[in-house]
Amino acid sequence: MSSITTHTMPIRVRYSETDAMGFLHHGNYPAYFEEARTELFRVNGGDYRAMEEAGLFFVVVSMTFRFRSPARYDDVLNVTVELERYSAAKLEHNYTVRRGETLIAEGKTVLALVDGNGQVQRITEKVPGIPAE
Amino acid sequence: MSSITTHTMPIRVRYSETDAMGFLHHGNYPAYFEEARTELFRVNGGDYRAMEEAGLFFVVVSMTFRFRSPARYDDVLNVTVELERYSAAKLEHNYTVRRGETLIAEGKTVLALVDGNGQVQRITEKVPGIPAE
Amino acid sequence: MSSITTHTMPIRVRYSETDAMGFLHHGNYPAYFEEARTELFRVNGGDYRAMEEAGLFFVVVSMTFRFRSPARYDDVLNVTVELERYSAAKLEHNYTVRRGETLIAEGKTVLALVDGNGQVQRITEKVPGIPAE
Amino acid sequence: MSSITTHTMPIRVRYSETDAMGFLHHGNYPAYFEEARTELFRVNGGDYRAMEEAGLFFVVVSMTFRFRSPARYDDVLNVTVELERYSAAKLEHNYTVRRGETLIAEGKTVLALVDGNGQVQRITEKVPGIPAE
Repeated sequence: MSSITTHTMPIRVRYSETDAMGFLHHGNYPAYFEEARTELFRVNGGDYRAMEEAGLFFVVVSMTFRFRSPARYDDVLNVTVELERYSAAKLEHNYTVRRGETLIAEGKTVLALVDGNGQVQRITEKVPGIPAE
Repeated sequence: MSSITTHTMPIRVRYSETDAMGFLHHGNYPAYFEEARTELFRVNGGDYRAMEEAGLFFVVVSMTFRFRSPARYDDVLNVTVELERYSAAKLEHNYTVRRGETLIAEGKTVLALVDGNGQVQRITEKVPGIPAE
Repeated sequence: MSSITTHTMPIRVRYSETDAMGFLHHGNYPAYFEEARTELFRVNGGDYRAMEEAGLFFVVVSMTFRFRSPARYDDVLNVTVELERYSAAKLEHNYTVRRGETLIAEGKTVLALVDGNGQVQRITEKVPGIPAE
Repeated sequence: MSSITTHTMPIRVRYSETDAMGFLHHGNYPAYFEEARTELFRVNGGDYRAMEEAGLFFVVVSMTFRFRSPARYDDVLNVTVELERYSAAKLEHNYTVRRGETLIAEGKTVLALVDGNGQVQRITEKVPGIPAE
């Protein structure tokens, strides 16, 4: 399998994403992970927007976060996503968020593939870059 | 016209809506206004979700905000919306946000009505609670 | 211990919280959980805003989510939070989100207590409603 | 005056920023404008984070938006900010958002400068890149 399985993208913390404690609010990490995941899909030749227009949708089944150190406004964070495992039923990604050498957060998501009616689809048959088993 | 043209709803500021300055971030006001507008529509017997399912969508054409005093986490704000003017082409609403007697913010939105293809529709023919002229 | 350990609050899904799939975006659940947690603290006589003004802050150490069924715009969701376990070092809460009888999501958070310098504090000595062990 | 008065930055629309209509929700534009404004400040040698750490804060006094055409998930938008006018009391910026040649939105903000107690400060004395009149 020649797919690229990891990708790092920089994301700068917006002022609107901070909270009264002065830190990046933890509720923004799902969006950061999602943005990095989209980029990993893109570097593999995937186009998630076109996939949705064709009636296939990734849905998040579960997600886990562990926060190690706070991030602040204007920090440039390196969000790394890795496709850890896949099957016909689900994709499992791991994530790390770092500012330089400092580990900010870690996480994991599990995704399933559904059609426009919410019916579960076989990922290995439908998704470019995910080879049939 | 017997429609109710003004409605006040309380909204409590969430921690996630604050920013590093310790205040409600100004980017949350559009959502507050929208939530109050939905309630005004509801007290007039409208159901915006059903309207969208039937293929009619309100889109924001313009919006204006004036900030008078900061709001903070856990404040209960009274968001008042008033339907100021309407025509076949647009709805104009005014808003005030208050904490007790203190004026926090004021604003205005202009909405148009479109169908699923983005074609402009005549509001006075299509929207319950907005009588034909 | 006479503390109230569970609380349910209704939260109506805002339009701004939906995504292009037509569902409540998963990134909003941390804010929903946080709002319910604040209310549980309040019904126990706690005032989280006053606690922060006094220099004590809860920080999220980890969080987990499991999504069971999608929620949509204008749904009224019942968010239930339960204080499952506590110690001097951390608070563990469980959450369920339901629309009527339908289970929408489940989750868990672990919180620690820090002062303004980020130094970890003993929860059982500092937080009202959490009795010393 | 040799300051740079206009800056364009690309912002890619996140999935979390879309709404059930399938478009970028209008409530995200304030954050886009703010991010572009920060970059304009940076290319002039300013460091807004350091400014806040030194006890000076820009607050939004008013903002106006006009929406011309919808944006969608994964669009790369060019957000252009221009410092239109300044005085000791306020900064006025204009904004345009474009996708290629298509005008998506326009807007305007007025900012004032305050210290940590909310007392209004003279911009032309305190802000690097804004020369004294």
